[in-house]
This record gives sequence, C-alpha cells and structure tokens, in this order.
Amino acid sequence: MFQNICVKAFQTVTSITLYQYVFKNKGTKLRHMGALLLTSGIATYTANKYKAEMATAVIETSNFMAKPITDIKKLSQNPNDMKTKMELLIMRIQAEVCHALEAEEDKDTRFQVDRWERPEGGGGITCVIQDGQTFEKAGVNVSVVQGHLPPAAVQQMRARGKILQDGPLPFFAAGISSVIHPRNPMVPTVHFNYRYFEVQNTDGSVQWWFGGGTDLTPYYLDEEDSKYFHRTLKKACDKHNKKYYSQYKAWCDDYFHIKHRGERRGVGGIFFDDLDTPSKEETFKFVETCAESVIPSYIPLVQKHKNDPYGYSERQWQLLRRGRYVEFNLIYDRGTKFGLYTPGARYESILMSLPLTAKWEYMHTPNPQSKEWNLLEVLRSPRDWLGTEGAEK
Amino acid sequence: MFQNICVKAFQTVTSITLYQYVFKNKGTKLRHMGALLLTSGIATYTANKYKAEMATAVIETSNFMAKPITDIKKLSQNPNDMKTKMELLIMRIQAEVCHALEAEEDKDTRFQVDRWERPEGGGGITCVIQDGQTFEKAGVNVSVVQGHLPPAAVQQMRARGKILQDGPLPFFAAGISSVIHPRNPMVPTVHFNYRYFEVQNTDGSVQWWFGGGTDLTPYYLDEEDSKYFHRTLKKACDKHNKKYYSQYKAWCDDYFHIKHRGERRGVGGIFFDDLDTPSKEETFKFVETCAESVIPSYIPLVQKHKNDPYGYSERQWQLLRRGRYVEFNLIYDRGTKFGLYTPGARYESILMSLPLTAKWEYMHTPNPQSKEWNLLEVLRSPRDWLGTEGAEK
Repeated sequence: MFQNICVKAFQTVTSITLYQYVFKNKGTKLRHMGALLLTSGIATYTANKYKAEMATAVIETSNFMAKPITDIKKLSQNPNDMKTKMELLIMRIQAEVCHALEAEEDKDTRFQVDRWERPEGGGGITCVIQDGQTFEKAGVNVSVVQGHLPPAAVQQMRARGKILQDGPLPFFAAGISSVIHPRNPMVPTVHFNYRYFEVQNTDGSVQWWFGGGTDLTPYYLDEEDSKYFHRTLKKACDKHNKKYYSQYKAWCDDYFHIKHRGERRGVGGIFFDDLDTPSKEETFKFVETCAESVIPSYIPLVQKHKNDPYGYSERQWQLLRRGRYVEFNLIYDRGTKFGLYTPGARYESILMSLPLTAKWEYMHTPNPQSKEWNLLEVLRSPRDWLGTEGAEK
Repeated sequence: MFQNICVKAFQTVTSITLYQYVFKNKGTKLRHMGALLLTSGIATYTANKYKAEMATAVIETSNFMAKPITDIKKLSQNPNDMKTKMELLIMRIQAEVCHALEAEEDKDTRFQVDRWERPEGGGGITCVIQDGQTFEKAGVNVSVVQGHLPPAAVQQMRARGKILQDGPLPFFAAGISSVIHPRNPMVPTVHFNYRYFEVQNTDGSVQWWFGGGTDLTPYYLDEEDSKYFHRTLKKACDKHNKKYYSQYKAWCDDYFHIKHRGERRGVGGIFFDDLDTPSKEETFKFVETCAESVIPSYIPLVQKHKNDPYGYSERQWQLLRRGRYVEFNLIYDRGTKFGLYTPGARYESILMSLPLTAKWEYMHTPNPQSKEWNLLEVLRSPRDWLGTEGAEK
C-alpha cells in the first residue's frame, strides 16, 4: 500500500538517485531485487490544495517479481495517470500473491519469473510454479501492452456494445491474470483477473473501462469453503457498492458457463466488465479492493486442505474436471481468445492457465449420490451461497 | 462394396421380408447383428435403358456397428439419392475401420457402440475404444442429421464464400469422423473425416458439396511412415484427378495450423471442402476412394510400431503433443465449432476426438538436435513428402 500512496502523492519527480537491480540467475529464473529511490518533488495534500514541495521519497519496488514493464522514469513522471496506477497495482498484487503461494510450498519451490517484451509495444512478467509440492501448476501473469486494436478485437468489443470508430485505434491494456491448480484434489483451483483498458478514438477522445473477477473451481464440494470464499468477495464489493456482489456474482455464473455441457466451470465468485462508473478513481479503488481480496479469500482454503488424504479415484476425477477447465478456456474464454488473436501475443503466458495434466473420458458419469455427483449438481444449478447470510452481513 | 453396388442397382423396393436385430447388452454396449433381406423390384442396367424386373436382393448390413440412422425402408426406397448412398458408405467405412482397429487389440477390447438420436432430427453412431492395449482412445463416429442451419453455421459458411439466402434453411449432413490415439508414442495419431452436405434454398433449389480428409500426427518422426502415408493418399487421389493430391495436400497443411504456435498439427495428408465438381456422382466416388484408403494408409503403421520400445520421456512428449492436439481441435477446428454450436449436438461424440490424457508444460522446448526437435522442425515447415517420388508415380 505504501508504495502506491507515495506515488499518488507525487506531483513531479525531478530525479532518480538510485535505480538498482540485482538479478539472480538460476536457469531461466530471474528475480528482481531492486529498490528504487526517488528524490523528487512531492505534493503533500493540505486541507484546501496540493502544494508542491521539494522532498525525498522512496518508491519501494523491492518486492516486485521483476522491474515494471513501463520505464520507471515514465511511471514517475505520470503518477496520477491511471495507466501508471494500474501498472503499479498489478505489480504489487502479483508479488503479494506469489509470495503468499510460495509460503505454502516447500522451501525449494519458487516461482520462475520471465519478463518479456512485446515487439509491438509493452510486455509482461509471467511467474510460474510447475510441479510443486502444493501447486501442480500456478501462474501469475501481468501484462502492460499498447498498440492498435486487431480487427478481431474490435469486432468482439462491438459485439458486446462498445461504440468504436473505424480505423486503427490505439489501445492500452494493463492486467493481472492468474490460475492456480493445486496438486491435492481437495484444494480448489482459483482464477482471478483484473484489467484496465483504454481505447483512443480517431478524434483523440479516450474510452476507458475496468474488468475483472475472482472465481473458484473445486473438485469436491465443501460448502463451507464456497460460503467463505463468496463472503470474502462480498465484503470487498460491499465496501464500494452494496449492489455489486449480487450483480457480479450473477455475471460470474453466467460467464463461466461451459454451454455445450450445461455446466458452470466452478462455484463462481464475481465477474464484471466494461465498468466505467461512477468515476475512474472510484472504479480503480473497487478493483484494488477486489485484487487485495484474492489472498484472504483463497489462501485459507489451501491451508485447510493441502494435507487432506486422497486416492487414485479422487485424482482421476480432478483430471477429468481439469479437462472441463481446458474446454472452457479454449472454447469460450474471451481473454484467451483476445490474447491468441492479438498479433505478437505471448501464447505461453496466455496458455499458462491450462493445467499440467487433463483427461477426457468418453461418457464419464459419476454415480448418483457420490461426492462427484454432488459437485455436478452445483455446477448445473448455481447456488446463492450467501442466501440468508448475505443479507445479514 | 457389394452392399453398395446392390443398392445402386435398386429402382424400387417393394417389401422388406426380414429385418432383424440382435442386441447384445453389455453395460451401455450395443451391437447390431442384424441382416436385412429385401425382396424388391431391382433395375438391371442394360446397354440402353434401365429395365425394372421383380427380383430378390440382399442388402448386407450384418457388418454395420448398429442399424443405420435413417429408416431402412426410406433408404431402400431412395437407393440413388446421394443421402442414401453417403449414409451407406459411412456405415460401411465405420464398420471396416472399427474391425481393422479391433484386429490390432487384445481380444477382449472391443468398440463400445452408442447409437443416439438427435431430438431435432437424425442421429449418429459413436464407436469408442478407451484404455485399450494398442489404442489409448479411438473414436469412429458417423452422424446423419437434418434440421435448419443455426445462424452461427450460416455465418461460418458465408465467411468461406457460400451464397446462402436469409431465413431458416433446411440442411442435411452425413459424415464419418474419427480420431485414433494409440498408446505407444511411436505410433502416430490419425484423423479422418468425410462428409456430404445439402442446404435447401428458400426457392427449393439445393446446394450440395462434399468435404473431408485424412491426416497423420506422429509424436516421433519416421520419414518412411510419412512418405508411405502420403503415397497411399496420392494413389487414391490420382485415380480421380492427377491434380487433387498436391492441391489437397497443401490445403491440409494450411488447415491443420496451430496459428498461435506457428506449428502444423502433424505431417499432414489431404483436406478439401466445398467440393461440387465435376458431378455429384464423380465427387462421391472420389470421397469413397479416399475413405477406403484410410485402412491401407494407417494400419500398416500401427502394425509396424505398436510394439516399439519406449520410456518415460517419450510418453511425456506424447502427452505434450496431445495438448497441442487439444488446442487445435478446441480453438481452430471448424467441425468441432460447427458441432458444438449446433443446438442439440451430442457433445460427447464431438469431443471424443480429444485424447484420454494431455499435458501442458509452461515453456517446454526440446533440446536442439533431439528427436523431439526433429519433429518440431517438420511441424514448422511442412515438407513435400513425395517430392521426386510423387512425380514418378
């Protein structure tokens, strides 16, 4: 939080006194251990106005997984630009989530960190654990890209109601996207994605919006887990608008729908897109609260179940459900499609969401009344997890 | 062949004297053991005209995996209708391929046969071996469906140049589709699909076309296998048009393209669509020859490699390549999309093409000069397998 508050307080940044990176090379592993000290003009907010004063401030980036995508100087010079704020938010959340996940792993399992650049503009940082003790595959990816919208993307945006002019439209997108596939079938998979989008019209005006969500995909249903997860998300939503949770819970159930099977991907969560009210600043704060709720909503479930006993048949069921996850992501997911259709896209980062292993058995049907069947029933008819509880809290 | 020739010779069919099915129920397993004897009016072709004579003929269906989708009486009454001819062709090919595959299995492994009906019209017969000794997953599916084209399908057809009127257009489609995933990584996967399509315009006129192809996806490159496979397909093509092989070989390389990876799915084969020249009869004969070339092009490769030694790393590579197979089928394959977007589609039959198990490792890259790398090079730059050989034969 500190780093972000500092940046928000900046009015001008006059010089960078220390800009240091330490790279630990371990195979393809890369870790940014840098710290950035900025001697800068800072504005302190007074009761009635911003007042520029010369001062020295520290932007703490030592916890980031790698140096930000945008040049530090540019970020420093535009601290109030939403592009800067979103990039710093996703860098921070990436690091916090990676560190929280590493804390659940054996001490030798650490995220592989790949910082990549996109020839057409921008880049990303992809962090992956593969074949860990707790996580079979965990990916946390940030990307900050700009360029011109590919025609397929324009078509996709128009189809959902965006009014976009003809011609090559410059865009900017910054987002964090993550899928965590644990090894133990009793630990659910989680996915989250928060993103900020700007498209510049030919008259120079800019359309902006935020999108995102967090959703849970258990292999075995633990109703307490689902309620806890939804309750944590609801608390985050309620801080900003009492209507958000129920709206975005419904949108999530609607979006993560494997239509050909008539099943939801999991027990839901929240999902929203094209959010551009009440204001850019308010929407950002809502997205920030949501992103900050990922760790408290999910890590307790990992801790609760990561040592649960399980056997061959639970593993087989987990692999079959992972096949359904692949079906959703490759057939329906808008983010995956947008990514793969974008020229110069880094497909390894987009497809990091796929599980390490998945299965497809022809005509697999669990026995009625089995635990596997219980899960299917919820996937076929999404529940209002917080029914009475939601009203109370 | 006999059965088809008999049917072609029919002019009128007056009665069905024997129509008998024996169902062996073994779980969900169903096997059609029926024979159909028709006492019918047969036309024998003379030098200058058809001459109707009363006679008794036998349509041998005892080898079919189940009874045809269309009512036998209707088929008998319309022996020269292309819809009938195509249905009987795909029923015969399905049975021949299933029997040829079963001959490579241990004697207890037999195809599970599911005959299904589509509420909107038509149905299919899905034959699957799962977890066999030779075949990890093998599916051979026929479907004969009619109804009205869903808007997504009309859009897809228009996008590739079909001129279709507005309004609900009645269609008929009959096809066979198969994917064989062997267990041994030294045995390639094969896919084939042959189909006939009719769309009725609002003025009553009918557009028809054939499509299809056969293609090979090895996990380890055996150049002799690729050449043998292509040579067998070329022989089939050459019987009908000397230009077909090179045209349809190129189309296959173009179609089975995993665009985001810049890789072909395999070493190719032949692929064509929208074929409606020189005549309906000639095109059918070409499709028949292609479908008949599946067994001779593929089964010898199974026999050659099914007992090859392999170890853990070869199995892991096979699973990764199967992940790529899933990517192609779910992201790009037109047939899969058309299927899943068709209301009332039997998704289990469409997705039977997916392997039993697949893997996705982040940033997996084989060592240069390894056998795995050799395969990748061919997938990135398709070869002209019959270069000089093709010209000789």
